[in-house]
Amino acid sequence: MKQALLRVPLAPLFAGVVPLSPETARYVSRVHRLREGERFLAFDPAQALEGEATLVEVGKGALAARIASVHPASLVPRRPVTLIQCVGKGDKVDAVIRDATELGASRVIAALSARCVARPQADRGARWRRIAVEAARQCGRGDVPRVEGPLPLVDALHAVHGAAGACLDPRGALSFGRWVGEVTRVGEVMREVALVVGPEGGFTDEETAACEDAGFARVKLGSMTLRTETVCAAALGALLALTDA
Amino acid sequence: MKQALLRVPLAPLFAGVVPLSPETARYVSRVHRLREGERFLAFDPAQALEGEATLVEVGKGALAARIASVHPASLVPRRPVTLIQCVGKGDKVDAVIRDATELGASRVIAALSARCVARPQADRGARWRRIAVEAARQCGRGDVPRVEGPLPLVDALHAVHGAAGACLDPRGALSFGRWVGEVTRVGEVMREVALVVGPEGGFTDEETAACEDAGFARVKLGSMTLRTETVCAAALGALLALTDA
Repeated sequence: MKQALLRVPLAPLFAGVVPLSPETARYVSRVHRLREGERFLAFDPAQALEGEATLVEVGKGALAARIASVHPASLVPRRPVTLIQCVGKGDKVDAVIRDATELGASRVIAALSARCVARPQADRGARWRRIAVEAARQCGRGDVPRVEGPLPLVDALHAVHGAAGACLDPRGALSFGRWVGEVTRVGEVMREVALVVGPEGGFTDEETAACEDAGFARVKLGSMTLRTETVCAAALGALLALTDA
Repeated sequence: MKQALLRVPLAPLFAGVVPLSPETARYVSRVHRLREGERFLAFDPAQALEGEATLVEVGKGALAARIASVHPASLVPRRPVTLIQCVGKGDKVDAVIRDATELGASRVIAALSARCVARPQADRGARWRRIAVEAARQCGRGDVPRVEGPLPLVDALHAVHGAAGACLDPRGALSFGRWVGEVTRVGEVMREVALVVGPEGGFTDEETAACEDAGFARVKLGSMTLRTETVCAAALGALLALTDA
């Protein structure tokens, strides 16, 4: 297997000499032991740009990347997909953001519902965005999902108005495969898809009704009651397989 | 939402009075605070049987389940699916067994390949089987996947001889959706499916060749390089959606 270039997030990215932050300099020179003159792949997830970089020293041991040219990232998801994830215990949202980034979500909204057992701290947003960038770096993705929230569930549902929506529910009458077939058509303009995943304790009847009122179909993926943190990978994997010919 | 009965693994299960082990007695009476006369759902994952149980005391405070009748479990996966998972760091196999149980695998084989970074201890088998039973309890599944290994990768490949096999690989030429379409046909006898997932560092060229020699197609699910512990949920979710009409 040909060794791929180390991917390093670097923003804003432009052709020229781009200084590295102390954190990024440490990452390339200490963690990965790159030396002056060695190459890596710099990517700017906010702009979905990338460019081959050469490590250079710029006085007093500070490091920079010399970028010959910048071009659109080679791997970005094609379909806009939003995941609305109700917040669970501990670091489950962290894990879901990792999975969602690898599996091509374009937007993740953390939502608060009645049976949420944890209220995330206010500084979670920055942490979640860092996790998304790191997951993009690892999986080869050239952009990152927008991460929002936590928002009340109803506000999250409104935030995806116009998308084809599904609420994952093992008691739903419609299968995931059939639903995807109904809302996506090969050759058509790609319609945005939104999936909503309940918390550990599930939705209340009122919340299920709110999802239906907002146009979300109740869709099941298999017959088992999945843990909230399993649903994202299973559903996004299913969506990729069903729409990626 | 109607509160479902507490599910309790109990083996061997039969109609009559079935004594509870001290561990199970503690689980129902301390953790879930059931009292004499209260009901739960006992299930025997090895036989895929279940029966409604009433908690009874049988002298000196020992507890038992009175089972009126035993019947085949209502939720068991329909298609035989084997997951061969190369062993990763730390407790990643634990997480994969949980996901595989929820998402309907019938057999999980832990495999050792060249780039495996961890060699599981000899007593992992019993731990893995307990994790599978607990995952089945949580998700409503009436049986458990058979958990085997760790075996050398080549032995694991031979152990699924005759199944339709795929090796998950982002550089594969065939998409997961197309592969599933080729190897499964609606209305046909359900053919066994086997998926092989590499370790964190991926397969060596020799291992990829061994998979191909054993008849495994190189199949990609999206374009990103998934972490080894994400592949199971994404691929089994995709398989469910593609085959569950």
